[in-house]
Formats: sequence, structure tokens, C-alpha cells
Amino acid sequence: MSQLTIAVDAMGADAGPGPAVRAAAALSRSDQSPNLILVGRGEELKALLAEVEHDAAKIELHHAPDYISMQDKPAEAFEAKPETSIALAAKLLAADRADALVSAGNTGGVLLAGARHVGRLEGVKRAALAAVYPTERPHGDKRDPFALMLDVGATVDAGAEELVTFAIMGSAYASLISENPSPKVALLSNGAEPYKGSAAIIEAHRVLRESGVVNFIGNLEGVDIPKGTADVIVTGGFVGNVVLKMLEGVSETVRDLARYAYRRRLAWKLGLWMLASGIRRLKEFTDWQQYGGAPILGLSKVCIKAHGRSSERAIGNAIKVATKAVRSDLNGAIREGLNVVKQG
Amino acid sequence: MSQLTIAVDAMGADAGPGPAVRAAAALSRSDQSPNLILVGRGEELKALLAEVEHDAAKIELHHAPDYISMQDKPAEAFEAKPETSIALAAKLLAADRADALVSAGNTGGVLLAGARHVGRLEGVKRAALAAVYPTERPHGDKRDPFALMLDVGATVDAGAEELVTFAIMGSAYASLISENPSPKVALLSNGAEPYKGSAAIIEAHRVLRESGVVNFIGNLEGVDIPKGTADVIVTGGFVGNVVLKMLEGVSETVRDLARYAYRRRLAWKLGLWMLASGIRRLKEFTDWQQYGGAPILGLSKVCIKAHGRSSERAIGNAIKVATKAVRSDLNGAIREGLNVVKQG
Repeated sequence: MSQLTIAVDAMGADAGPGPAVRAAAALSRSDQSPNLILVGRGEELKALLAEVEHDAAKIELHHAPDYISMQDKPAEAFEAKPETSIALAAKLLAADRADALVSAGNTGGVLLAGARHVGRLEGVKRAALAAVYPTERPHGDKRDPFALMLDVGATVDAGAEELVTFAIMGSAYASLISENPSPKVALLSNGAEPYKGSAAIIEAHRVLRESGVVNFIGNLEGVDIPKGTADVIVTGGFVGNVVLKMLEGVSETVRDLARYAYRRRLAWKLGLWMLASGIRRLKEFTDWQQYGGAPILGLSKVCIKAHGRSSERAIGNAIKVATKAVRSDLNGAIREGLNVVKQG
Repeated sequence: MSQLTIAVDAMGADAGPGPAVRAAAALSRSDQSPNLILVGRGEELKALLAEVEHDAAKIELHHAPDYISMQDKPAEAFEAKPETSIALAAKLLAADRADALVSAGNTGGVLLAGARHVGRLEGVKRAALAAVYPTERPHGDKRDPFALMLDVGATVDAGAEELVTFAIMGSAYASLISENPSPKVALLSNGAEPYKGSAAIIEAHRVLRESGVVNFIGNLEGVDIPKGTADVIVTGGFVGNVVLKMLEGVSETVRDLARYAYRRRLAWKLGLWMLASGIRRLKEFTDWQQYGGAPILGLSKVCIKAHGRSSERAIGNAIKVATKAVRSDLNGAIREGLNVVKQG
């Protein structure tokens, strides 16, 4: 196995650079570890790294004097601060010094850095941010509890061509990363019938149905999102963003209601105590954002956006996902899919 | 109080005409009852009505030989069957023989009958289907557990002018029907900032902010939908449809998971038994669609779409809502709001 290099933007996460540095340090000590370039304030990273055991041969520090904070407006920050950690990390990919990028920073900043410095795969007009989310039904042979949805915020207005591209990219990701060999792909619409939805959805439906490029199961409705009827749900960035944030809101509401019930009545309190292990599972389930990264699909190199609240473990997972995406040639699979549609 | 007349489309609901006939019969016996015209197959309605106590002076039967079933495609059914119950009921409004319409039939059929035979209020370019849904936070002085969302499927592509009109209509409905004097109105977007969202959302935001026509609290995100941050959430029909169906799906998933937990472990079984009254409340909560009707706002007369699964009680409630909407002059309040924006 050839040695890969992953650029890790260590700045701009909610808890600062600590989790990223510790994740890189821990990973460096395993045999399968890729080389890691930590990008951020040099002195700060050096001090944090000195505190933890690591394999110095596998970790390089790359100084960036600035970073984009969660409060920054990405486009403005890009103008005002030319040497942010995310911009320099993306430039490492452009210069072929790294094979993939992981960041737990400002989502808009990562999308912008990807668009400006990494660039898109040939044949991809718009990138997509994909997210995994928990569903009632498991997915694939591995009974993965998560489904994939894209786009969730990179491309607000997606036309038919973009929706088809998103379907191909999501299918490739579910197949190679979630190891679900023939993932069921659906378009989100306001009705199951092929004639329902915007002109873009109707045309994308036709192309997906006729090309056979993915395992297309047709249009699904909102009710199918939590059920997990499809392994990959394709939609535009506006709707995907609303839906994903609504799932977060529902999780929080369920937890709040459980807390409220706990305070309310003795019988309910006892009941909840009996259910404690179930509720712990629910909490794990609703904390899903901790566990994966959200891939930005359609760029010429792999970019994974980890959640801003990521723990060391979560960032470690995101680096592993990035490594797996490079080793399994995710972008090669996407290119193949695009060719099928182009020739069809 | 003057005598109002409500046209009730008695056909096409999941359980047939029984619930509508029984609801009308029960209501006719109360002093505050409006006059009711039951529209549907005359002999069938007559036989059903003969089985239940009712005030014959307040109930009129209006024969319609056909009806639109849940399986029918509304536009095709309209061509093939000119004398459906929903079309004839809508024509009673057009002929000023009735003041409002209630139907538990095919949603597309009710929307089409409203558009073709009832017509829109002056200044309203597109009608909106509004829906109430349960939220974590209560609403208004009456601590109503439901918020209002519109559009949820009448106008798939809503421009800025439509979104502003929907905000005015939703605010009037929440104020007069839910008796929430100054309902908080928000636009659903992919970010809270005024510059987030489509061009239509950005422009609607500006108009609502500057005109002061409703109590506009700005843009909200998906996470705010289940929390109930706003009393009225305004969005286009595609997104509203996805969101509303997703709420249905989440409710079903929560119930399925509870059932699964019940089978799984003795401790969980005991726990759920302890929580029985809580779960009954959850079930009531998730059965919310039973309780109100969904108003079609923007038509020249009040039209309420009750859920296809409506019980007698649910249809009775929908008739009461229609009566309240006419008596409180909902359309007058909408007209006033439209004038504020027009002159602004």
C-alpha cells in the first residue's frame, strides 16, 4: 500500500486545535496510518503535539497564521485573510503535496477553499455536500444504521444535470465507503410518481431511469426520509439543508421531551430509568453527527468536512474515511458513472 | 348571528360518507350550528342520515352522481367526471348558496375545485394549503401545541410575492382561528441571516421586514420546525410538502421504535408500561392530523381540507373551523394585510 498524505486543517473547530492534533497523534502510531500534515498556527500545534505520544516521522506541521472562525462569513474572510489554515490546506492538495483534506472548521470556508483551490472533477459542474443520518431501517449487507443524503448545502439550486451527478456520486460513496455494493438511490420529491416535482426532478428521474447508471428506485417523499427507504437520497441543497437541520431539531426535541417527562411524574421517572439503556442508545443515535465526516463530493481530490463539535475520535474517523476514499479510488468510480451517462 | 351555510363534500374520504354524515347530524342538533349541505350520492346519504338523530331543518342533501377517489388523478378525474361531489360543492360556493366548503376527499381534487369554481381573493396570485403540526413549544396565550406551516403543497414554486401573501394569510389564520393575537411569522431558509436563501426568499424577507404587515421574526432553519420557534412558518409548496410528510414519518418511526423496544427486553417492557400514559399522549400528539382541517388560503371563500382518515369528530372540527373562519371574517383580515403591502 502506497503512502498517502492527508492534510488536516487543525484550526477553527469549536474546541480549537486540540482534538485534531490528538487524533493525528493517535493515528500516527498505527501501521496503516497515512502521512499527516497538520495545518494551523505552528507554535500552538507544536506545543499541543509535544504533549502527546506520536510518530514524528508521519506528522508534518504546516504553518498558517490565520484561520476562518465559525462566526466569520466565509467569502469575506477569504478576502481579508489570504493565509487561513483551510486555504493553505487546500493549496497542499492543489500542489499534489496531499491526497485528501479533512477539516472541522467553518463549512462555508471548507466549501469555498475546495471550490477555489482544489477544483472540480471533470464533468462535474457543482459540488455536493453529503451527510449521513440515522434511519429506522438498516442499509446494505453490513446493516449500516445510516443513510446518505446529498446535497445538504453546497448547491442551493440544483438542476437536472446536477441531480444526476449527485446520484452518481452518492451511489459511489455508499458503495465504497459504506461497503453497500448496490445502494438504492432515490430522488426526493413531493410525490412518488415520475411526473411529480420540478422540471429538474422530472428530467433527472428520466435520465436515472433510462441510463441505469445507479440502482435507481424512483421518487421518494418526506415520509421515507426517517424510515430509510433508500440508501442514498438525492435532492437540492436548499431542501437537503432544511431536512438535515430538521432531523437535528427532532433529535433535540425527543431528548428535551424525555427530560421533561423525567421531571414530571414518579411513574414516568421509574419508566425512564427502566428504559435507561434504550435512551442511551437513542442518545448515541441522535449524536450521529459525531461519528462520520460529511464528504464534499465532486472535487478533484477527497475533502471531508467533520462536524464543528467533533471529538478526537470523530476527527480520527474522518481521517480514516478520507484515507479509505483515496485508497478505494472514489473519484475513479464517480468518473466511471459520469461516463455512463455521457455516453448514454 | 346570521345563519351560515357550509357545503360538506361527503364523498371520497377513506371511510366513505359515514363520518361526514354523522358529523353533520350531530352538529345540526346544537344551537350554534350553521346550515349544512351534504353533497354526494343522494340515496346513500339519505339512508345514512336516516340512521342518526339530526335536525332536518338544518341539513340539505345535494345529489352528485360521481366523486373523485383517493386513487384518481385529479386533473383527469375532473375531465372524465363533470359531476363529482367536490366540483358540485365548490359550485355551491360560486353560486353564493354556501359560505364555506369542507372536504375529506382527494387533496388535489379539492385544490382543483377551489381554483376552478371558487376562484381566488383579489390580489392573491396563488393559493396555499396550510397545515398545523405539533411542536415542542406552545403557541400564543392559549398555549396551543400546534404551529402553522404554509404552503404544504398547493404552490410548488413560490416567488417572493407569493411568500409575502402566504405570510399574511398564515398570520390572519393563526390570529383569528388559533386566537393568537400577534403570531410570530418566519420564513424557512437555509440560514438565519437575511441574505440566506433563494432570491425569492431574500426579497420576501425584505418586504416583510419593511412593511411590518405581520409580526415577522426573520428567517428560521430546519432545526426550528419541531421546536416551534415561530407560530407560522412560511415556505414554498415543495419544501412544505417534504417537511410535513417527514414529520409524519418521524411520528411513525417513533411509534415503531417504541413497539420494537416493547418486544425487546423485560426492563424496557416494564419501563414502557410505566410510561403508558406518556405514550398515549405521544400517540395523541402524533395523531394530530385527525384534529384540524388544513385550510386552503387565498380563495374567495373559506375551504377546509380535512384529512382523508378523518373520524366523525375530525370532520365536525373542520366544519367548526370553517364556521369560525367565516364568522371572524378571515378573508377580510387577509384583504387588509394585502392592502398594507400594496400601499407600502
